[in-house]
Amino acid sequence: MDIAIVLYDRFTALDAIGPYEVLSRLPGARVRFVAEQAGPVRSDNGMLTVLAECSLKQAGHPEIVLVPGGPGEVVPRAGGAVLDWLREIHETSTWTTSVCTGSLILAAAGLLEGQPATTHWLAIEELARLGAEPRSERVVFAGKIVTAAGVSAGIDMALTFAARLAGDTVAQAIQLAIEYDPQPPFDAGSPAKAPAEVVALLRSRSRFEAEREEAAR
Amino acid sequence: MDIAIVLYDRFTALDAIGPYEVLSRLPGARVRFVAEQAGPVRSDNGMLTVLAECSLKQAGHPEIVLVPGGPGEVVPRAGGAVLDWLREIHETSTWTTSVCTGSLILAAAGLLEGQPATTHWLAIEELARLGAEPRSERVVFAGKIVTAAGVSAGIDMALTFAARLAGDTVAQAIQLAIEYDPQPPFDAGSPAKAPAEVVALLRSRSRFEAEREEAAR
Repeated sequence: MDIAIVLYDRFTALDAIGPYEVLSRLPGARVRFVAEQAGPVRSDNGMLTVLAECSLKQAGHPEIVLVPGGPGEVVPRAGGAVLDWLREIHETSTWTTSVCTGSLILAAAGLLEGQPATTHWLAIEELARLGAEPRSERVVFAGKIVTAAGVSAGIDMALTFAARLAGDTVAQAIQLAIEYDPQPPFDAGSPAKAPAEVVALLRSRSRFEAEREEAAR
Repeated sequence: MDIAIVLYDRFTALDAIGPYEVLSRLPGARVRFVAEQAGPVRSDNGMLTVLAECSLKQAGHPEIVLVPGGPGEVVPRAGGAVLDWLREIHETSTWTTSVCTGSLILAAAGLLEGQPATTHWLAIEELARLGAEPRSERVVFAGKIVTAAGVSAGIDMALTFAARLAGDTVAQAIQLAIEYDPQPPFDAGSPAKAPAEVVALLRSRSRFEAEREEAAR
């Protein structure tokens, strides 16, 4: 089973590596990190460099495609090789998936028109603007398209479709192998649960909020 | 704040990237991936290549050191530059930390002698054999040494000491930014919770169990 994870400059690392850690453990899985061009790709903060093993042209016809999010998504979303490739690959993929603001790229490729989908909580309105039917859920299935909420949600998404692909026992074995028994020290992982001042702090820093305010003016 | 994440051939990616995603968001944080030699380092399954930005010799005196686990841990654990470096850096670090079987490396460096510590659940006995006092807990503090259980536990560890380093509000803001509101599809993330046959399946494949059976014979 060929799995392609699409990289681009300033992607968010955990969006990609969370699902990779789960999906690479599926029987027969081959995960490849792909990008417009093969070679080094930097994460959003510039502190991590991952090698893209091959270019999109060399990526063949993966059964699973995963698009991570990150502030760099604005570049592939604006048009070009990544969008063209996604439209083409989606015709033959078994699952086309995204984590976080990766769904904005899927939407820009025209794959989410009128479809239920999710994204990072700060980007939900942007996702609606791009034609999807946004859902505030952690993992959203819409036919063969699966979208996950922000960053860490990719782990839950990957376990969910690991179960669909290989059965509950395999998915549970992967969960136990990565000891995914979450015990966060706070219950602040969603805007509905976090203290109001923490939500306000992140909103005040968000590029999506800044764009919205700009548009309102 | 300088944070060094130590890479070695066949490390487990999420052990490193989970904490990186949290710690890189701390105010003033600079995360560097370091290895015995600068350059590409492959993950445990060979499907991911991360660039080590600098060698151990070039790493200066990081305040936080993090050692991920992975099947490749046997090589640095056997002795050499990584152990020497850890012993030296531990003298000046603020926190010396590990995820998963990274604690076996800390133990081999002599840093866990008689100390409470944790590791991947399959390696708990190996950790005891190396002189630590193993605990079946997700995150264990022992002075300035912090150890986390298997793979995904590094996220919880990093959030826990993000709060100690920068306060609860900052840690909660990071948790909300990475939307860490875990909703695994199963409750199978620890051997106490997973179905018995899933636990047995992983035990039967474990290199630690194989070594134990070999020793028993």
